[in-house]
Amino acid sequence: VTCAHPHLRGRTSLKFTSYEPTLLGDCDIVFSCKRPGDTFAYVRDILAAGVRLIDFSGDFRLKAPEQFERWYGVSHQHPDLLDQAVYGLPELHRKQISSAQLVANPGCYTTTAILTCAPLAEAGYADATPVIIHAISGVSGAGRAAKAENLFVNVAENVRPYRIGTHQHTPEIEQELGALAPARAVSVLFVPHVGPYRVGIMVNCYFRLPDGMPEPTDTSLYELYRARYAHEPFVRVYEPGTLPQVDWTTGTNYVDIALRYDPRTRTVVAIGAADNLVKGAAGQAVQNLNIMAGVTETAGLVF
Amino acid sequence: VTCAHPHLRGRTSLKFTSYEPTLLGDCDIVFSCKRPGDTFAYVRDILAAGVRLIDFSGDFRLKAPEQFERWYGVSHQHPDLLDQAVYGLPELHRKQISSAQLVANPGCYTTTAILTCAPLAEAGYADATPVIIHAISGVSGAGRAAKAENLFVNVAENVRPYRIGTHQHTPEIEQELGALAPARAVSVLFVPHVGPYRVGIMVNCYFRLPDGMPEPTDTSLYELYRARYAHEPFVRVYEPGTLPQVDWTTGTNYVDIALRYDPRTRTVVAIGAADNLVKGAAGQAVQNLNIMAGVTETAGLVF
Amino acid sequence: VTCAHPHLRGRTSLKFTSYEPTLLGDCDIVFSCKRPGDTFAYVRDILAAGVRLIDFSGDFRLKAPEQFERWYGVSHQHPDLLDQAVYGLPELHRKQISSAQLVANPGCYTTTAILTCAPLAEAGYADATPVIIHAISGVSGAGRAAKAENLFVNVAENVRPYRIGTHQHTPEIEQELGALAPARAVSVLFVPHVGPYRVGIMVNCYFRLPDGMPEPTDTSLYELYRARYAHEPFVRVYEPGTLPQVDWTTGTNYVDIALRYDPRTRTVVAIGAADNLVKGAAGQAVQNLNIMAGVTETAGLVF
Amino acid sequence: VTCAHPHLRGRTSLKFTSYEPTLLGDCDIVFSCKRPGDTFAYVRDILAAGVRLIDFSGDFRLKAPEQFERWYGVSHQHPDLLDQAVYGLPELHRKQISSAQLVANPGCYTTTAILTCAPLAEAGYADATPVIIHAISGVSGAGRAAKAENLFVNVAENVRPYRIGTHQHTPEIEQELGALAPARAVSVLFVPHVGPYRVGIMVNCYFRLPDGMPEPTDTSLYELYRARYAHEPFVRVYEPGTLPQVDWTTGTNYVDIALRYDPRTRTVVAIGAADNLVKGAAGQAVQNLNIMAGVTETAGLVF
Repeated sequence: VTCAHPHLRGRTSLKFTSYEPTLLGDCDIVFSCKRPGDTFAYVRDILAAGVRLIDFSGDFRLKAPEQFERWYGVSHQHPDLLDQAVYGLPELHRKQISSAQLVANPGCYTTTAILTCAPLAEAGYADATPVIIHAISGVSGAGRAAKAENLFVNVAENVRPYRIGTHQHTPEIEQELGALAPARAVSVLFVPHVGPYRVGIMVNCYFRLPDGMPEPTDTSLYELYRARYAHEPFVRVYEPGTLPQVDWTTGTNYVDIALRYDPRTRTVVAIGAADNLVKGAAGQAVQNLNIMAGVTETAGLVF
Repeated sequence: VTCAHPHLRGRTSLKFTSYEPTLLGDCDIVFSCKRPGDTFAYVRDILAAGVRLIDFSGDFRLKAPEQFERWYGVSHQHPDLLDQAVYGLPELHRKQISSAQLVANPGCYTTTAILTCAPLAEAGYADATPVIIHAISGVSGAGRAAKAENLFVNVAENVRPYRIGTHQHTPEIEQELGALAPARAVSVLFVPHVGPYRVGIMVNCYFRLPDGMPEPTDTSLYELYRARYAHEPFVRVYEPGTLPQVDWTTGTNYVDIALRYDPRTRTVVAIGAADNLVKGAAGQAVQNLNIMAGVTETAGLVF
Repeated sequence: VTCAHPHLRGRTSLKFTSYEPTLLGDCDIVFSCKRPGDTFAYVRDILAAGVRLIDFSGDFRLKAPEQFERWYGVSHQHPDLLDQAVYGLPELHRKQISSAQLVANPGCYTTTAILTCAPLAEAGYADATPVIIHAISGVSGAGRAAKAENLFVNVAENVRPYRIGTHQHTPEIEQELGALAPARAVSVLFVPHVGPYRVGIMVNCYFRLPDGMPEPTDTSLYELYRARYAHEPFVRVYEPGTLPQVDWTTGTNYVDIALRYDPRTRTVVAIGAADNLVKGAAGQAVQNLNIMAGVTETAGLVF
Repeated sequence: VTCAHPHLRGRTSLKFTSYEPTLLGDCDIVFSCKRPGDTFAYVRDILAAGVRLIDFSGDFRLKAPEQFERWYGVSHQHPDLLDQAVYGLPELHRKQISSAQLVANPGCYTTTAILTCAPLAEAGYADATPVIIHAISGVSGAGRAAKAENLFVNVAENVRPYRIGTHQHTPEIEQELGALAPARAVSVLFVPHVGPYRVGIMVNCYFRLPDGMPEPTDTSLYELYRARYAHEPFVRVYEPGTLPQVDWTTGTNYVDIALRYDPRTRTVVAIGAADNLVKGAAGQAVQNLNIMAGVTETAGLVF
């Protein structure tokens, strides 16, 4: 473990072990951190053993298997399990998570985007026009594989857009926001970028004011969000006049959100920031673990 | 000079000198690199001396003095000069620049945004709906003043949005694109950010397809831009399948542009990248100088 | 507090308060984080109130007031307090710290340098020839004041040496190593640099093998350090074949140390790394607090 | 070519071609940029064709084949060519370079280290005690291969020492400085590091004042260097009171050097900085090309 994580030297005697079904006997809850499609091979073992699973892959996040196949380009091998899988975003599905056996833990882009847009979607702002979600992520979002595009020499002093409108996280955002929207459907253009830094994500979400919707103010938008997230331990809504910055969330499990309404162009800008490795991955999984285990939701996440 | 620019040590014996009107006698063309409002004090001296001026401030870029006052928050002291001032973007105003006495050299955001949007605006894509221009700039765009927000500790591993919808470059973009648009007016929501790097700018421009406009393809958009910029030495249009990256323009006077059409959301994404210190400032001024002096436009800019 | 530390938003309702002597009544132990010379004004208040003080300035670290005056360039106003002040490096002075009223908390360069050199100094390696200590620090070591030299544009893609042989931390290192050396005196050439990153420090300490000293091996040096630091919770000694890296200590209170002997040049290289804001400042102060308060030394420092 | 170097898009129609001996017929001078040992396969072809070769590998830099084998770990396949190979450092071997057929172009560490130390070595400062050369390089020094250690996530916010005392550039530095030293031999401890930036190198060279040598001053050292490099177009010696910084050399072919004498420890510190990709590689090769071709030495290197 200290080879992969040298900063843990002297802190742990844990060792990596290959997966063996027999190991499941000692487990109550398992975290699975495989690439898309790689969970399929052993998910039934785990569930059959009565073990609960928090899955980091995208394999069980989309309710419609044909969406999975369209965006991921591979067939879904266990469509019958999709019904019982719970989308692991506590702010939307806390109750179902608490009793779920299979939790599909969402990733960095989706967590940040969905939480930044949810109250506006609920209020009908996304019913008429597609939402444009412009995102930038630190390069840790790409993992630690030795790819040339992620070398320091290719990332530093650079910004790189990719997969405009075709990123596989798009349908997750549409699914979750669509479930909240009065129109029961939301269309999203998701435009991701890699920025010259290690950690953190920022999403800028652009909503065109629907015809007939009364004009909001920065304050009314703030009140909308503050009310929606009043009891959420990991969402911080910024009062008008302050904007989030990526590094204000680094190392924390927070999503920070601010709202601006531009009357000249009748556009709402919702900005969200989070640590892609914490609320965007491992921290959220711990939050789900706490909910599933019935312990304090912030345990291990706030010191 | 080598105190301000240590890398020039041994390369120059130039010295900084305070401005004296008597020095104008030796000048044909002057570069003025003052902050907004600071050119007013001596612009008449320069013009009266028959000297030509390339002005880096924003003082003569907006044709409507009331727009200057609204966005810059100060009164315009020479509204009578605005008529003769030429907006110094060679790709739009080359002919007028060649004979102008007063050239208002545009900055980094505006240059990149206008060139990235111009052919779409000309084609009517911006007539019906506001254009959303999301921008990120390296921190050199903020100059070298010792502000806490630009310290390494506050910029590294961070992304910082600012002045959403209220940045003073907004009306310039609207003015220049509006002059090209069939509707003779364009509305822009400009959303700037500072990224954790030194040099370079990227703009993402989102155009909603107007009702009744036939759907474009990536290829048709590419052809539109390639035709428009066919003879431009400093605009590079990317073929479908490739996206610009900020550092591919670093140290050059190019603006690199790519177009994507997302049919799901009926949105055109135009992405532009440039070096904010070259095409976004000094390089463009040299390009204007070359045009004004009647020498090869690329002189000193391509090696 | 959340203005100065935006990441703490929602985590604390603490407020900054100006110092008032009357506030001391509620305190058992005070942290003072002033610049050199600025503690003088109120140190006697604190001590007279029976309060214990952990001082971050350099004002009470040097035992000889004339050394303070020579290296800091100001007069020492309380030389009579120097006798009772304890140098707050737990690995050297744990016992005295536990009962001290005035603890002079050492900084980043000195903590890392002293711990990296101490066992070699004790073994006589520094008796004959000056030790060369080459150091590089992230720019957070310079604080958050808005100085041009610490702007992102001046720090990124740069390495900057400064104060070669004249840095005020030099005499502290000589004092502490000298107290351990058989010769009772050690001479140090300290050469600091600022590197293009935020957090962390690395020192490379070069010891010329004294005449007559038997040649060590990497293994014998490792054993020397391992024995010396066997019971230290915050010193990690690397086995031969592995070298520390700055970011393996980031966010921790560890000093990581490795030793190499180069037989060709008869030189020992001792390399130490630490987080300049944790073991190099605040973390060490918490460690001292724990020792002074008689609680577990690692409380609040290891999760 | 524009795939490997996207910034050259639109600037060149050059294409990469595989090496064919028949292509040599069109060449006067060839640059070979292969890894160590890889030039051996075709060097005789080139020389036999009467073509002159500027070789970037380390294959012909060391005069003693047994040194090559010891430090590179492979056998030298053409030891008979070593006599005619000229070490391509113009400041030391300009005359031989001008008529050489085979020029061994030195790399970044060696160029910077040798030029920073040469006048001191000539003056006898390296005769008695090994010189400690502490170096830090931007990560471009490691090339563009997709290695995990050079990923942005592993380089940013980090400093990494490596190959202490065993780096293959050590014997080159000893060879070149030894040829200048009164004692005809110099011993070097070379300690390289990778820093969190892309471009540039800094070496700190520590010389212990030999017994009996009169003490220098910063000024006397400055005069020594200024005199030695008075006619060198690409060496800049800094007057006392100013220290080089890595980014003052970025993009240039300069080596910047400053000298400090610390009387407390009787140590001379020589600091050198350069762009590892220019004077440390390609720029120096162009400088050698100019000398070999008999054109102005600075052609293509100073604008």
